[in-house]
Amino acid sequence: VRPGSDVAHLSILGYDPYREYPGRGVFEAAGVGLHVQSGDICFRTNFATVDKNLTVLDRRAGRIESGQAQLEAALQEIRLASNPDVRVLFKVSTEHRGALILRGEGLSPNVSEADPHEEGKRLLEIHPLDSSSESWRTAKLLNELIAESHARLKKIPLNVRREKNGKPPANILILRGASSMPKLLSVNEKFGVRGNVISGGALYRGIGKIVGLLPIHVEGATGGLDSNLNNKVKAALRALKEQDFVFIHMKGTDTAGHDHDAKAKISFIEKIDAAIGSLNEKLDWEETHLAFTGDHCTPIDYGDHTAEPVPLLLVGPAVMPDDVDNLDEKSAQRGGLGRVSGNVLPMLASLNNWLPKFGA
Amino acid sequence: VRPGSDVAHLSILGYDPYREYPGRGVFEAAGVGLHVQSGDICFRTNFATVDKNLTVLDRRAGRIESGQAQLEAALQEIRLASNPDVRVLFKVSTEHRGALILRGEGLSPNVSEADPHEEGKRLLEIHPLDSSSESWRTAKLLNELIAESHARLKKIPLNVRREKNGKPPANILILRGASSMPKLLSVNEKFGVRGNVISGGALYRGIGKIVGLLPIHVEGATGGLDSNLNNKVKAALRALKEQDFVFIHMKGTDTAGHDHDAKAKISFIEKIDAAIGSLNEKLDWEETHLAFTGDHCTPIDYGDHTAEPVPLLLVGPAVMPDDVDNLDEKSAQRGGLGRVSGNVLPMLASLNNWLPKFGA
Repeated sequence: VRPGSDVAHLSILGYDPYREYPGRGVFEAAGVGLHVQSGDICFRTNFATVDKNLTVLDRRAGRIESGQAQLEAALQEIRLASNPDVRVLFKVSTEHRGALILRGEGLSPNVSEADPHEEGKRLLEIHPLDSSSESWRTAKLLNELIAESHARLKKIPLNVRREKNGKPPANILILRGASSMPKLLSVNEKFGVRGNVISGGALYRGIGKIVGLLPIHVEGATGGLDSNLNNKVKAALRALKEQDFVFIHMKGTDTAGHDHDAKAKISFIEKIDAAIGSLNEKLDWEETHLAFTGDHCTPIDYGDHTAEPVPLLLVGPAVMPDDVDNLDEKSAQRGGLGRVSGNVLPMLASLNNWLPKFGA
Repeated sequence: VRPGSDVAHLSILGYDPYREYPGRGVFEAAGVGLHVQSGDICFRTNFATVDKNLTVLDRRAGRIESGQAQLEAALQEIRLASNPDVRVLFKVSTEHRGALILRGEGLSPNVSEADPHEEGKRLLEIHPLDSSSESWRTAKLLNELIAESHARLKKIPLNVRREKNGKPPANILILRGASSMPKLLSVNEKFGVRGNVISGGALYRGIGKIVGLLPIHVEGATGGLDSNLNNKVKAALRALKEQDFVFIHMKGTDTAGHDHDAKAKISFIEKIDAAIGSLNEKLDWEETHLAFTGDHCTPIDYGDHTAEPVPLLLVGPAVMPDDVDNLDEKSAQRGGLGRVSGNVLPMLASLNNWLPKFGA
């Protein structure tokens, strides 16, 4: 398959996306720092601009660049008329992006989207996608929630000022990617692994959190091409003094691939090379195993994820070396691992003999 | 496993035979040109020779070499006493072979065989293999059908003449391989692939049809060692001007393997080599991907299908080449693909980026 980043990461971490992929909302919610619980219904959100008739004028409110704290503050402590016991948790991410959780009894992720996915069209009423009372109740709550977001946001000083300056106001919250907390075992329960996640991008941090890794905040880790990879490596080395495992995510090569920008990709690969070089120098190779891989290809000419295999490097005292001396797509085809699918974390756990014996 | 040709082809085309294999009858029925529908019960059939006591004298009626049209005509418009609403569709294939469909409400493929699989034994009464009324009803209909085939066939001029000439008359129809239409998604629904099947052999054409490929009739494509492979290649090149995908089947190597005939096998491989050579010259390699493989081994010394791996060649603009320069069983072991199981069509679809993204 052509994997999304969330699906590919689940697979790398030893989960089966065909059985266990819950949709993206839950990872985004965890990634922005919301504490997702069982039963929560999670959404990715957009601030958008609507007119009086709720026609969507701008799905991203002009990719609003500042004032996120004011927007977030405006949407705290929401109580919904049809069920005041349901809690609404909201956090902004970057630009127009954010994540939202509905928390309460008897909710369902099986509801339609409000986003018409086209500007000039009216915002859609959310409706249940099955006949359960949970889905019906959730749809009703969400319609109330969107109306409430509009009532609150249209009045805040930020938006009054934006309108005065001819900028699209961020006057409504649109929800998508409804998903509920998957019943995933943690990587500790599955593979005996305790550890951290280091990532600038919210999605990857969110995936790590959902499988039980503790996020480490790293100064300068932006998830962009400018991210400070050396700080990530330093944080990982510090963490490894206490923890079994650290997952470091580096995003820039994918971003450059999506942008068809070969130069940026090469330069980010060089940056990764330097960072991994310093990791290599400082790791204790008598007792450490390292896996280095990508979650998917994003070829420059295609500009999106493809299904081709990616190289995987395993290093450490229990690894049987093969005859391949270079880490690249072509050389990796001759590698001793053959072609495997996901499950990199359980490979590391097995190299460390952390896995229980299966059988006797 | 040692795969049958039908199972191996389903796997190559991206289906899971453990979950989705319906039995051979349905492919044979589709392959001879019957239009299989949901609910149909399909059979492979043999013309056989029985005496007055229904003892089987020749299971293949002397591999009857001519008169198939008369045999087919004799078995049209059959109505069965116990349920005249059930339709019986019958078509001959080559020699003693044919396919038959029972079409109607409430039928089941779960019935025993009539074929005693041994000459000198009496034809078996068909009985239900479970306690459902559908299986009971179907067994009853089939016993009536076999009796009716005998009543009709023993009288036709062809058989009167054969008996006069001391040849075994094709005086009864024996059914086997009962199977019903599987609920398979088409290759278009599964992988976004629309295309054609080119095959002399009915089975392969039938499999192609069942997964949604349109058969192309090719002059001189016999499914035998004499098949005109160059005509197949020309037809494929024409089809590719309109279609995404063409599946070409070449049967001769398997036939020669079953016959322990090394010379015939080598000579057919040379014939394939020439045909693929002309395909290679004429394909547009800027936008075409080719997969070349076998559905199983049929070693000369063993004379039947074995479970060993077969080489698989992938070529095209999105393929990362490996260091292997020859296509043979030994060289392929060093290939960049490693050892994969089936799923060749989805590989082609993914090389073309036809697959939807899984995840976000």
